[in-house]
Amino acid sequence: MSLPRPCGIVALLTDYGSRDPYAGVLRATVLRAYPKAQVLDLGHEVPAHDVATGSLFLGAFAGRLPAGTVTVVVVDPGVGTDRRVLLVRSGDGYWLAPDNGVLEPVLGGDAEVRMLALDHLGLPPRSRTFHGRDVLAPVAGWLAGGRYGFTALGPRIDDPVRLPTLPPHTVVHVDHFGNLITNVGAAGLDGATHVRIAGQRLPIVGTYADVAIGALAAVVNSYELLEIAIREGSAAARLGVHRGAGISIESAPGARP
Amino acid sequence: MSLPRPCGIVALLTDYGSRDPYAGVLRATVLRAYPKAQVLDLGHEVPAHDVATGSLFLGAFAGRLPAGTVTVVVVDPGVGTDRRVLLVRSGDGYWLAPDNGVLEPVLGGDAEVRMLALDHLGLPPRSRTFHGRDVLAPVAGWLAGGRYGFTALGPRIDDPVRLPTLPPHTVVHVDHFGNLITNVGAAGLDGATHVRIAGQRLPIVGTYADVAIGALAAVVNSYELLEIAIREGSAAARLGVHRGAGISIESAPGARP
Amino acid sequence: MSLPRPCGIVALLTDYGSRDPYAGVLRATVLRAYPKAQVLDLGHEVPAHDVATGSLFLGAFAGRLPAGTVTVVVVDPGVGTDRRVLLVRSGDGYWLAPDNGVLEPVLGGDAEVRMLALDHLGLPPRSRTFHGRDVLAPVAGWLAGGRYGFTALGPRIDDPVRLPTLPPHTVVHVDHFGNLITNVGAAGLDGATHVRIAGQRLPIVGTYADVAIGALAAVVNSYELLEIAIREGSAAARLGVHRGAGISIESAPGARP
Repeated sequence: MSLPRPCGIVALLTDYGSRDPYAGVLRATVLRAYPKAQVLDLGHEVPAHDVATGSLFLGAFAGRLPAGTVTVVVVDPGVGTDRRVLLVRSGDGYWLAPDNGVLEPVLGGDAEVRMLALDHLGLPPRSRTFHGRDVLAPVAGWLAGGRYGFTALGPRIDDPVRLPTLPPHTVVHVDHFGNLITNVGAAGLDGATHVRIAGQRLPIVGTYADVAIGALAAVVNSYELLEIAIREGSAAARLGVHRGAGISIESAPGARP
Repeated sequence: MSLPRPCGIVALLTDYGSRDPYAGVLRATVLRAYPKAQVLDLGHEVPAHDVATGSLFLGAFAGRLPAGTVTVVVVDPGVGTDRRVLLVRSGDGYWLAPDNGVLEPVLGGDAEVRMLALDHLGLPPRSRTFHGRDVLAPVAGWLAGGRYGFTALGPRIDDPVRLPTLPPHTVVHVDHFGNLITNVGAAGLDGATHVRIAGQRLPIVGTYADVAIGALAAVVNSYELLEIAIREGSAAARLGVHRGAGISIESAPGARP
Repeated sequence: MSLPRPCGIVALLTDYGSRDPYAGVLRATVLRAYPKAQVLDLGHEVPAHDVATGSLFLGAFAGRLPAGTVTVVVVDPGVGTDRRVLLVRSGDGYWLAPDNGVLEPVLGGDAEVRMLALDHLGLPPRSRTFHGRDVLAPVAGWLAGGRYGFTALGPRIDDPVRLPTLPPHTVVHVDHFGNLITNVGAAGLDGATHVRIAGQRLPIVGTYADVAIGALAAVVNSYELLEIAIREGSAAARLGVHRGAGISIESAPGARP
């Protein structure tokens, strides 16, 4: 396919948190590289060094970014090693991230994967502590502003690091509201009627509002994943369940889940 | 009055928090609907499902947004029910929110209130879990970008849900600095000299700096509400007081409060 | 030197936190004063009233902002007193802040320092509680948008408040990852090989990746300051060390540190 034209938006997803100036420095550096960029904060609260959750969060943006957005993902436990930096064209957008699996949601399908040619671009091959600022942010600004084209930034590769698959039927994230997000996709729920978790058996319903306030239930959520929730409450607190907990799915008699 | 012309700014106030990608998804969806929009984060830390505090926060922006701003407020315990979605023109701006009272500060005066015609706009009548993303954000982008005008988005109504009034003389919010914000407006303080709270009697002063560092006092704050504060400290921690606590007001002899 | 031309970007660094609407009100007020401004959030989590940490954070942006940026810094324990408000041109940018030392990183070299003429500009000389909103944000918008030039905003002064110097070899900040940031600059480490802290002796290395996962080490970090860290872990938690802790530096025999 022909390459999407950068739209000037640079999106940022990191584990930098908000307590420190790191996310602000990333924003500033993008704008210093391309002052007309529009910076779009996807989030900066990926748990520190947690590549799997960074990848889960990234999946929430699939198909939802403006065409031509350049997205920078920094969850980088390997900073300072010689791990590669990836530049990916997938669908109608571009992604930059360390080569550690965090880009899993955009590596499939028609994705074109390149590795940044750090030496050719005059960038430090190994920044000591802040690769996001010293490498990813300026490159994102250059790509968004047209100083470099996608293919000029480094050679194509075909072996990006892929994310290990988690055991099925696992709670993979507890969100801000206390909802338990599992790795069970909507496709795996055909005929399913109930979920078992922490000794409880909960109905699978269409929306939170199908149960009473304060009642537990499971729904397919906005990630298109099965989620255990309490209407207007915290399922995590009620069930005492953390990330990594197992669930099981029950189907109606005669159904083939 | 004639309708204000959208200025391209879309402002966001939600209870999504910053730990999850939800606020980022909202920003991205606004930009996907209208890539030239400027997204203005008013805040994403309204306590979860807390309509009254969302309304208090919204009041802090009264008269302070650029003319023609489209503001989206998402505090939505009723998501998934058939509660309506409001679109309001008030003063020189537009507001979108669930019909649950959170828009109270902009419902008075000359406000023109409409309900979104979800079916006519090709929007899902009941999004399961993420109405902010699936309904409010795209409509805000369309209105800000001129794809739809205000009157084309739904019929006028005259019965929006109003926010229940709290008991007077109540602490309605404890802020980040530990200041105790009450629902006593400046207008109710004529002749008042002292506040009683948690067994203490505190002077009402003009500014924090009128008392010594570490001393408790009451001031009229930037919300134009009475606030109990410690200069350079946390009044909440010192007094052991939480939201919902009662206060009483003392006036000078002879004054009529 | 000739004055830099404002580029329309207004950068914000405050201790307002994210729980309350204060940071959002600041952003909105900048845009109300100059609707074409681009707001750049440097951060809003400076610890409350902590001028020294605000100054440390500000230093992280030195040389990293787009030319012509107007930066507003609000860490203001003296709000409501008659402390001055500074307007500084330093390098290729502008800075606005209370006159309390928080601007220390931009006060050296060729900086030109002015105090806002609050009376002449029709601004309140003493805002009771929210000087950021009532004074600094509108002035920043006016300067960024060209309504007032730098020299028209107030007279030049030569006695801005300077930040007291901390004792050398002190932990001055614990970041989000649990890294311990000291006030030892790279220049003071010539010949140094080890750091002693909390009874431990740690090697000074080039990058986190030079030690094993889980091992403690010291590096020169992205602030260009010595930092004690654990690769993929929290040094603060491991060592039980807080801000203010002392360290000592060891050099190789024969070296002159």
